[in-house]
Amino acid sequence: MKENQAGWDDHTRPHVVIIGGGFGGLYAARSLRAAPVRVTLVDKRNHHLFQPLLYQVATAALSPGDIAYPIRSVLRKQANARVILQNAHSIDLKSKRIQLDDQELAYDFLIIATGVTHSYFGHDEWAPYAPGLKTIEDALEIRGRVLQAFEAAELESDEDKRKALLSFVVVGAGPTGVELAGALSEIALHTVAKDFRAIDPTEAKVILVEGAERVLPPYPAALSAKARTQLEKLGVIVRTGQRVSRIDDHGVTLGNETIAARTTLWAAGVAGSPLARSLGTPLDGVGRVLVEADLSLPNYPEVFVIGDLAALANVPGVAPAAMQGGKHVAKLIRREVAGKPTGEAQIQALVRVRQPFRYRDKGSLATIGRAAAVADLGRIRLSGFLAWFVWWTIHIFFLIGFRSRFVVMFGWIWSYLSFQRGARLITGPVKSEDPALKSEDAALKSEDAAPKRLSG
Amino acid sequence: MKENQAGWDDHTRPHVVIIGGGFGGLYAARSLRAAPVRVTLVDKRNHHLFQPLLYQVATAALSPGDIAYPIRSVLRKQANARVILQNAHSIDLKSKRIQLDDQELAYDFLIIATGVTHSYFGHDEWAPYAPGLKTIEDALEIRGRVLQAFEAAELESDEDKRKALLSFVVVGAGPTGVELAGALSEIALHTVAKDFRAIDPTEAKVILVEGAERVLPPYPAALSAKARTQLEKLGVIVRTGQRVSRIDDHGVTLGNETIAARTTLWAAGVAGSPLARSLGTPLDGVGRVLVEADLSLPNYPEVFVIGDLAALANVPGVAPAAMQGGKHVAKLIRREVAGKPTGEAQIQALVRVRQPFRYRDKGSLATIGRAAAVADLGRIRLSGFLAWFVWWTIHIFFLIGFRSRFVVMFGWIWSYLSFQRGARLITGPVKSEDPALKSEDAALKSEDAAPKRLSG
Repeated sequence: MKENQAGWDDHTRPHVVIIGGGFGGLYAARSLRAAPVRVTLVDKRNHHLFQPLLYQVATAALSPGDIAYPIRSVLRKQANARVILQNAHSIDLKSKRIQLDDQELAYDFLIIATGVTHSYFGHDEWAPYAPGLKTIEDALEIRGRVLQAFEAAELESDEDKRKALLSFVVVGAGPTGVELAGALSEIALHTVAKDFRAIDPTEAKVILVEGAERVLPPYPAALSAKARTQLEKLGVIVRTGQRVSRIDDHGVTLGNETIAARTTLWAAGVAGSPLARSLGTPLDGVGRVLVEADLSLPNYPEVFVIGDLAALANVPGVAPAAMQGGKHVAKLIRREVAGKPTGEAQIQALVRVRQPFRYRDKGSLATIGRAAAVADLGRIRLSGFLAWFVWWTIHIFFLIGFRSRFVVMFGWIWSYLSFQRGARLITGPVKSEDPALKSEDAALKSEDAAPKRLSG
Repeated sequence: MKENQAGWDDHTRPHVVIIGGGFGGLYAARSLRAAPVRVTLVDKRNHHLFQPLLYQVATAALSPGDIAYPIRSVLRKQANARVILQNAHSIDLKSKRIQLDDQELAYDFLIIATGVTHSYFGHDEWAPYAPGLKTIEDALEIRGRVLQAFEAAELESDEDKRKALLSFVVVGAGPTGVELAGALSEIALHTVAKDFRAIDPTEAKVILVEGAERVLPPYPAALSAKARTQLEKLGVIVRTGQRVSRIDDHGVTLGNETIAARTTLWAAGVAGSPLARSLGTPLDGVGRVLVEADLSLPNYPEVFVIGDLAALANVPGVAPAAMQGGKHVAKLIRREVAGKPTGEAQIQALVRVRQPFRYRDKGSLATIGRAAAVADLGRIRLSGFLAWFVWWTIHIFFLIGFRSRFVVMFGWIWSYLSFQRGARLITGPVKSEDPALKSEDAALKSEDAAPKRLSG
């Protein structure tokens, strides 16, 4: 037991619980650092993830440690905050209690920032064939599948099967889908181009499928067109205005046509985090929480929803909106507790007039590949190398506090100059060498005996 | 199909199969680059692992991508070599064939370099409680357990249970055990020292248990003593001359005494790779293959065993011995095929007089912690900062070809200056937020639907 508890252990202070250590949750917590509150941040993972670069882990350019950072480290010096590594299972708004794995947690203010997960538009049977990209584990799963497909093709003697192994379909041409498709194409054309003997990886096909009429649907049409051109220059086959009707082990079906592909990646739909459904308040069509203009829950002014999980008109599900939302609700809470007692009646009285949340759109950026990107910065629209350079600079800048943006920067420079991707590991369980032999003699069969909890 | 096959696809050349892409296998392959042979390197993993730094992944200082490198990349430009990602299940010496997952492979020369795995001295029931450190997955498992122990202690209200969670036992005080114990102590004293609110991580105990009378038993006694002093200065409790009689969920039993500890790491015994047992030739007590002085198999001069799997007097199981062994057998093969036809009789005739393998011991190095190490370089024996600096320089130097030794170097400098460990991620499966809720509605339960193949 130690002395550093003065802040969060002062039970006369109102207790602010934040669920989720993404951009929204962390910005909220940091913005409360000087407030006379106790902050508890609950997350089921011990790390914050710099999600805009997750596709770089999936495509073997970066390691998980490059884009993930322990939440505890972020809040180490914030004496009024603690971190709990637990799942939040349900929220009881009436009693103001949260059910965690092993305990209940009471709150005075609650900030829900658990984000969204993939959605397969009601076709969950597609999930095993088309992993999405939300977590480090997702990224490593995708990386393993892509690299393994080339390995399997090298050993495949059947021409059709080999073609299917060398076909990669990305479903959804939002920023993540565009980034994945561009990076896959680069892997085939450059990274592994000379690594194989029986196959020519540059014959691999990357097909990007989008239901809307153009790629990057939320972007201005001119930039969408430029993105498409850049993708096609990289060898990506772009199929817009086409809806997926089936995904299985053989490939992806669009209407009557089936694209034979053994690797399909899902970058299409999202759904609100399941925790939202325990609230019992109205959700939108994809399970996000309908919030008031100030980001609070209807009838529960002490509860806020921020980030991707909040459904509010004109606020997109992007990192800057989550950060701004976190700051906004922290400001409301600060104002309401400033020098005030913690009683229920006071808080209720104070919440009557609140500033609505205003999202300041600073622009959108999507990268496509080496020296290719599009940027919509309001009046300024960029594409090509310049957009890519802006994208790169901004992302390096926002990596502050991570393992060292310098380490990542050097890694990137290395990758860029060498066309190599340093994190090209297929890891995870390997079949044991000879199970029959191993069971004969316990003394020698230790290799796979430990239950593996694998990770990144 | 492409043109780059001239080398390995020339079936008039003798076929050299190498099983295992560690130091021995890769050095053998590289040393055959100009020889008129076809080389097939078989490994069950796609990456070569720089094993001397594996403990740095286990203790969160480095990411897997920093110390692992695709085998294909190493052999990319070697036109006479190809890589197959498969398990080798058994070897039939008479028919000169290897059974892989999906195919058989015939060889003219065979180099077995599959190394060793952990051995629990006949107590495989200890394995789930005391993971060893041989693979990336092992390292991530250990990293997860160590970080999770601090997290669980933060939430534990029972004093005895919290003490057990904050006790870490390392069994075996060879170089790996010493490195792990030193790094664990640093994590507790520095890295996470200020990250928690309910516990004081600096109260954590690291206990290093060794059956022999001193740490680093193969080293000179004076260096062992210095290593012990440096470990104790780091707060490690060193228990030599003590044998483990039981390991379970509660802790480690030494004679009549049980150390209550929830995390135990195994760095004690090794056993030959199971593949060795399919040979049917004599093995030593721990399952390593008894070889002739030239590293060939008795009665099978076309088959060699190199690296940790070879049992030969005065050759230790260290990376330099594996590299030298790989070069040695490649030289023998080169000499025997040089300008010669490939026929059986000729090869048999040529193998009669062969150079024996001579291991040149260039010294031993073990690191203990920040600025602490011991080095036995023959006449020169170092300890403390100077030994550590030599250790560091040599390891950086041998990382050539990895993601960039500069990236790793910058990462290390950063870790050193900041006392931080950038790869502090607990990854792997997380319990779903609410299984009951999720099963109600297929459209929203996609998060955990994909079968996760997790990795580093």
